[in-house]
Amino acid sequence: MTIQLLHKKLIKMKLTLSVAESCTGGLLAHTFTKLANSSKYFQMGLITYSNKSKINVLKVNKNIIKKYGAVSSECCKSMVQNLSKISKSKINISITGIAGPGGSTKDKPVGLVYVGIKKGGKIIINKNKFKSINRRGIQSLTVKKVIEDIIKLI
Amino acid sequence: MTIQLLHKKLIKMKLTLSVAESCTGGLLAHTFTKLANSSKYFQMGLITYSNKSKINVLKVNKNIIKKYGAVSSECCKSMVQNLSKISKSKINISITGIAGPGGSTKDKPVGLVYVGIKKGGKIIINKNKFKSINRRGIQSLTVKKVIEDIIKLI
Repeated sequence: MTIQLLHKKLIKMKLTLSVAESCTGGLLAHTFTKLANSSKYFQMGLITYSNKSKINVLKVNKNIIKKYGAVSSECCKSMVQNLSKISKSKINISITGIAGPGGSTKDKPVGLVYVGIKKGGKIIINKNKFKSINRRGIQSLTVKKVIEDIIKLI
Repeated sequence: MTIQLLHKKLIKMKLTLSVAESCTGGLLAHTFTKLANSSKYFQMGLITYSNKSKINVLKVNKNIIKKYGAVSSECCKSMVQNLSKISKSKINISITGIAGPGGSTKDKPVGLVYVGIKKGGKIIINKNKFKSINRRGIQSLTVKKVIEDIIKLI
């Protein structure tokens, strides 16, 4: 399994990792923490589900959310940058998207998910459009894709 | 299912909820956020897996961890009190324990899990000793028990 591969790689390379999740709501964090020895690299997860928590805990500027929305490349970038400052981990991940079934608009459909990855000074923001029959499917597809994205980067 | 019952109750009673997880590493948060409409009550989750994150993000006094350890009634209480200040949610939950297979001592075996629940001015700290064949079992038993504990309280 891909997560097992990443798990071993992170331990071997002595990397540290933290996550900031919105629409996946803890699934990414738990995908790591269900494995024994994940404490060797996994440091923290901030599940900033409400906009208030994105502003208060992750210090996302409220004007970014007002102007672009919480599900935006700009918010995703701010989340990963600020997480990096808080966690001091070598790899930081942010996720913001619409898992559905509610919350979608014409421009932002269910399945739209932004993923931010920061390693050192490098930041990548990926825009994904996942298709699934339900909310859990969108959440699972997101986590699967994030794990693949991290493997590619390290 | 018990989680469905709690989910409906929280929405009906217009309560808000936040969690601070250590050994369950996001499983409690995701147990709520996998359900549609959980955003009506679920506000944030702080997965303070490392001691550093307990101190830096949750503002647990480092002397508490030094004196009693991270898996202690004292640390659990501090986690739920400080989460409450950060989240301003009506119900706050903290979890700290040993999911194993590593990390145990003679006094603190695998399966020892403290759960803190704060609702208004009332704080309850429950000490649990779960038995399971593996790490995921301990994590699942913890989440199941927490959900039952919250239902009893509200």
